[in-house]
Amino acid sequence: MKKKSKKRTPLAKKKFGNSKKHINQQTYLGLGPKFVNSIVIGLNEDDDIHVKKIVAGLDEYDLARLIEILDISHRRKLVSIIGDKIDPAVIPELNEVVQEQVLDSLDENQIVKIVNELDSDDAVEVLENMDDEEQDQIIQHLNPELKYQVQSSLNYPEDSAGRIMSREFVSMPDSWTVKEARQFLLTSDELPDEFYTVFLVDEKTLRPTGEITLDKLLRAKPDLKLNVVMNGEIVPVDVHTDQEEVAHMFREYGWMSAMVVDTKGRLIGVINIDDVVEIVHEEASEDMMAIAGAESNDVYRSVFDIFKSRSVWLVTNLFVTMIAASVVGGFQDMIAQLSVLAVLMPIVASMGGTTGQQTLAVVVRSLATKELTSSNTLRMIGKEFMVGLCNGTLFAFLIGLAVYFWRPEQVMLSYIIALAMLCNLVVASLAGILIPLTLNKCKVDPAISSGVLLFACTDTGGYFIFLGLAKLLLF
Amino acid sequence: MKKKSKKRTPLAKKKFGNSKKHINQQTYLGLGPKFVNSIVIGLNEDDDIHVKKIVAGLDEYDLARLIEILDISHRRKLVSIIGDKIDPAVIPELNEVVQEQVLDSLDENQIVKIVNELDSDDAVEVLENMDDEEQDQIIQHLNPELKYQVQSSLNYPEDSAGRIMSREFVSMPDSWTVKEARQFLLTSDELPDEFYTVFLVDEKTLRPTGEITLDKLLRAKPDLKLNVVMNGEIVPVDVHTDQEEVAHMFREYGWMSAMVVDTKGRLIGVINIDDVVEIVHEEASEDMMAIAGAESNDVYRSVFDIFKSRSVWLVTNLFVTMIAASVVGGFQDMIAQLSVLAVLMPIVASMGGTTGQQTLAVVVRSLATKELTSSNTLRMIGKEFMVGLCNGTLFAFLIGLAVYFWRPEQVMLSYIIALAMLCNLVVASLAGILIPLTLNKCKVDPAISSGVLLFACTDTGGYFIFLGLAKLLLF
Repeated sequence: MKKKSKKRTPLAKKKFGNSKKHINQQTYLGLGPKFVNSIVIGLNEDDDIHVKKIVAGLDEYDLARLIEILDISHRRKLVSIIGDKIDPAVIPELNEVVQEQVLDSLDENQIVKIVNELDSDDAVEVLENMDDEEQDQIIQHLNPELKYQVQSSLNYPEDSAGRIMSREFVSMPDSWTVKEARQFLLTSDELPDEFYTVFLVDEKTLRPTGEITLDKLLRAKPDLKLNVVMNGEIVPVDVHTDQEEVAHMFREYGWMSAMVVDTKGRLIGVINIDDVVEIVHEEASEDMMAIAGAESNDVYRSVFDIFKSRSVWLVTNLFVTMIAASVVGGFQDMIAQLSVLAVLMPIVASMGGTTGQQTLAVVVRSLATKELTSSNTLRMIGKEFMVGLCNGTLFAFLIGLAVYFWRPEQVMLSYIIALAMLCNLVVASLAGILIPLTLNKCKVDPAISSGVLLFACTDTGGYFIFLGLAKLLLF
Repeated sequence: MKKKSKKRTPLAKKKFGNSKKHINQQTYLGLGPKFVNSIVIGLNEDDDIHVKKIVAGLDEYDLARLIEILDISHRRKLVSIIGDKIDPAVIPELNEVVQEQVLDSLDENQIVKIVNELDSDDAVEVLENMDDEEQDQIIQHLNPELKYQVQSSLNYPEDSAGRIMSREFVSMPDSWTVKEARQFLLTSDELPDEFYTVFLVDEKTLRPTGEITLDKLLRAKPDLKLNVVMNGEIVPVDVHTDQEEVAHMFREYGWMSAMVVDTKGRLIGVINIDDVVEIVHEEASEDMMAIAGAESNDVYRSVFDIFKSRSVWLVTNLFVTMIAASVVGGFQDMIAQLSVLAVLMPIVASMGGTTGQQTLAVVVRSLATKELTSSNTLRMIGKEFMVGLCNGTLFAFLIGLAVYFWRPEQVMLSYIIALAMLCNLVVASLAGILIPLTLNKCKVDPAISSGVLLFACTDTGGYFIFLGLAKLLLF
């Protein structure tokens, strides 16, 4: 997961202005192939001085990008040359897989030094990818405040609001006046690098009561109390809420930030919209990859890792196709007598597979984005059935006609394939919606297993319907 | 496309505080089935008073959601009951397809009234979905300022920065002092409903020179000039830049907002991160749907519309499978002699299809997110080839073994299917990366046509390799 970093390094503090926009006009158009090449040559020739010099000119975003673009061996070499002089802000910017590879090239002390410079949410992001033992080792050596923050975040479930929330935010009692609030903002040393909203809590319970954006605070009358000028229509997010749900609420209600509360309702963190951009991006990628049996980080993985993850999916698929083949096997004698059946049978199965996939993609995505709810599920099933029927009729007609012109002497063959096409396309449409819905009901991620089950239906179904009809009507 | 609305209705102005967070705690958990049901009953019984009463309690987000959840006929009925009393802010919140249906239920005067209440970016979003004639009609009747803004935005290409940018933002000359800036913010009547950053321009050229976030402005010394305290490391976005590219830059560099400039480099608009969330969401959905030959708005479409769009894809697929079938046809005599070949051939084709799809999904997504660049393309091709080789070897062995145990008397069959599997999986892996790369080079969206071309390779290829080898080695 890549994310903007809010660095707390002394360097960043010295620089006034928004460190997030520190972008080199020249490199913003992407690190050109020439640039990357010169680094690669430097790495190949062990010209550490040259490499260090070039890298020193890059900001955290471009250095992260460069590390990602290099292949694994160059990546490791580059990191070992920079060592712990690497800008800590680079690490959270890296793709998850690359991040792991980079940290593997550093020793424990170097990692502790880097993590100590990060904000707690970035630190959590880096730490949660490590194995438990390594994680414990690093945490033990963090500075006390960060250690406490990181430990309590890691106690919340993976991908929960508690993991992604930031603990650096501005909050104050809602009983303060606008003047007091402004005074606090002017004098406090403990403010985050950047903030847009002040979050308000009840002084006694520490529960959130409202929020006020800086533009409103700037323009409000100084003597008014904050609880008069604040926006009190807030929806605190429980710390255990899944990040996908959080992203959904941001999108659905146009939020810019959300307050995270613990089980007692006390304000403990804030999620900002820039983190949500990453979550939306990530979740969409994951669904798309899961449906195809791949993983979104494959670009950065080694051949062996990719092979491992993909072969699991292929084994399942092999099993499914062998079942389909065994259906064909049951009709082997018939095929021996009328081999044209073998020519036509893949058409029915393939059209079914494609039809089912269309429905499946829509349904999996609609479930993820919560566009498919209990109120419109039945209607959607009906719609998919109708679409299957329409397409089934159209393609029954087309394939029937084609086969008739190809083999006019065997009219029955046209009828059989037309009927099989109609049936299989309806089955495929229904399978495409019912399979993910059922998996979803059973709390199984519909993106992951739907595809295989779908093909099991459309292939096995397609062969069985077509060959079965042939047996019934021709023999 | 759904998007936060920044409403300028008198109602919104009266209310102090952040109108975006106006959320009813009770409904935020989603409009329950009971609630939706009571509306449906009201609509069925033509109980307009009941319906109006319930709807009046909903904010723009929940009303938009309710309209989306209803089926087309209820949707139309509800809109005709509310009429032009509908909160204008609801319209930009609606899914594109639903928005069109809702506007179809309103007459021209009602639409003009609604659009006149919107910010220019929301107005553009609503207008760009209309056909040219209707669009012109509406624009003619807008108030002069909005009319000018909308017309100039619509002159920019679809999905460009010029279309999505907001024209309501705060900018001032960088030669002002912090004090002057604050004074302006306190006294100006023309400020947007909400803003977080002040954008700075050169007084003469109107070109952007920097930006300053409100927290920095609040804390800066009053006598300093803005061009001293501002963040000057900005990257203005050209107004013609594609929205996908804009979203990519936001993600890559952790931006919160971006300044949009015209061809002369003058600041003409601003894109905020909350718009980017929608773009990221939309583009990911589109890719996922395109790869499967479906469309992301199918949930809201009528059966006939879904049928039309999906059947186009299926016709192409029919064509591809018929080519594959004709390959099988070429070996028909052989199959008649040895019908076991018909049983085994789908296994090779199907495994190829699945392997190719895994690669395809990764490559299409990586191209969209620009993780695949000229610097790592060759390496990625090599990796996919190796993964194909590894999987090919593994599954050649597995299927060879399975066939051997099934038909020990025909050892040659095991060798043939094993060899065919190896070849087809390598072909599939290479096709999965080379097809989208080639399409991308030819400026064709790889998400849309890759799938069909891939299956043409893996099906036709699978049958040809398997049956061809059988012909060569058995007959």
